[in-house]
Amino acid sequence: MDASNRELRSLRLIIEYDGSELCGWQRQASDLTVQGLLEAAAENLFGAPHAIAGASRTDAGVHARGQVALLRTFSTIPEKGIRHALNQRLPTSVVVRDVTAVDANFHPRFSATGKWYRYTIWTGDNRAPRWERRAWQRRGPLDLGAMRAAAALLEGEHDFASFRTVGCISKSTRRYMERIEVTESEPSVVLVDVRGNAFLRNMVRIMVGTIAEVGAGRRELAAVTHALAAGRRETAGITAPAEGLELMEVRYDGVRRGTLAPT
Amino acid sequence: MDASNRELRSLRLIIEYDGSELCGWQRQASDLTVQGLLEAAAENLFGAPHAIAGASRTDAGVHARGQVALLRTFSTIPEKGIRHALNQRLPTSVVVRDVTAVDANFHPRFSATGKWYRYTIWTGDNRAPRWERRAWQRRGPLDLGAMRAAAALLEGEHDFASFRTVGCISKSTRRYMERIEVTESEPSVVLVDVRGNAFLRNMVRIMVGTIAEVGAGRRELAAVTHALAAGRRETAGITAPAEGLELMEVRYDGVRRGTLAPT
Repeated sequence: MDASNRELRSLRLIIEYDGSELCGWQRQASDLTVQGLLEAAAENLFGAPHAIAGASRTDAGVHARGQVALLRTFSTIPEKGIRHALNQRLPTSVVVRDVTAVDANFHPRFSATGKWYRYTIWTGDNRAPRWERRAWQRRGPLDLGAMRAAAALLEGEHDFASFRTVGCISKSTRRYMERIEVTESEPSVVLVDVRGNAFLRNMVRIMVGTIAEVGAGRRELAAVTHALAAGRRETAGITAPAEGLELMEVRYDGVRRGTLAPT
Repeated sequence: MDASNRELRSLRLIIEYDGSELCGWQRQASDLTVQGLLEAAAENLFGAPHAIAGASRTDAGVHARGQVALLRTFSTIPEKGIRHALNQRLPTSVVVRDVTAVDANFHPRFSATGKWYRYTIWTGDNRAPRWERRAWQRRGPLDLGAMRAAAALLEGEHDFASFRTVGCISKSTRRYMERIEVTESEPSVVLVDVRGNAFLRNMVRIMVGTIAEVGAGRRELAAVTHALAAGRRETAGITAPAEGLELMEVRYDGVRRGTLAPT
């Protein structure tokens, strides 16, 4: 078949994974990563290398329920068949939930207008084996009211320069946090649901580390305001561990929130 | 110190574990088991072998949130200190939630008057990595109404001879099921909560396998009634896999339900 007659299809993948035993999203030479596993599955299926770009470069240990990725292919296999064939070629820790044809202009990262991350904290007196890989085993009670007050300070548009890892290279550090919700989903399990237009590197984990310090009575609300104003990493709280974080959903509704587009 | 002056204490342990990588409760020569890990921790702590009996001999892969065990010791370490010291000697998959002094007559198995098991079924179209170790990845929708009707047939006192594995050696096969509840805890996650006075080997898993077949439209309600009457393993449904099962609670309220005491 003549390649010039073939149509290049853009396919949006929705991906769920348990990151416990994976080295994050981004392809690496030697370690198992979600991108690496997907690209290997696609190459095996189509018989040629296929680059697969993702919406969020999640770290090692971080989970996802709604990671979004783009696969471009000349293959004529129907979407459902591609989903099924990719899943047959993936370990049980990674699954392609959905494959949908999208516009050629779609980009999982640059077209995204918002993301929803969930962070889970175990606050019981003992470790909880059932939450070992999926929650921060912080132990000891947290004051939810204080956490909500801290979360409220971080909502809206701010310069989050204090809330990113030293290795983060984004030029702009302004981001818009639409909603930061703190709830108790079952006894001793605290959820922090963060919805924002875009995120700096480790931003959710540093926000959660800071909010948890307020909840534990080890940080004043004024120190959160100070961290926002100071623009220095050391003024914010600790980086909460990776295993509590899950990318729930990436939004593509075309509505830009905040004055600056994410970079 | 003269042993004759020392007091033998009876301590009730409440234990949580993730059974994914364990070979069940019962001590084995070479494999990791919950009983083996607890006894090794106790021996290391007290400097002498201590036998620890459990309420339920859970199979490999089965989880527990409220397993109960008995530790008898001459040690004078306070309960809280024993809990802490045992947990320091256990892997993250096993945790002693509570240590409480009990009457010398207490036996975790023979004093038990009821148990609550929870079985989790994933019914989505794709596998769910986040439920991989903790649910039966059955896939495909189940009719909850039909499942509830099947569960209702199993409630009350019956001869459950069809609902035990061939290797089960209990003399009496009559058991009293107080309540079998079928609920959807979140989209595509179906819980079967079973409360009964005592259980035959693999009984919950065979009941759930049977109820799920009814929910999938592959078994009539009349076939459940027939299985109860027939008393032959092959008349009941499949044995649902271990990873979906969790021992939630063991009850010691002194109230015997059903006409026959469990053996």
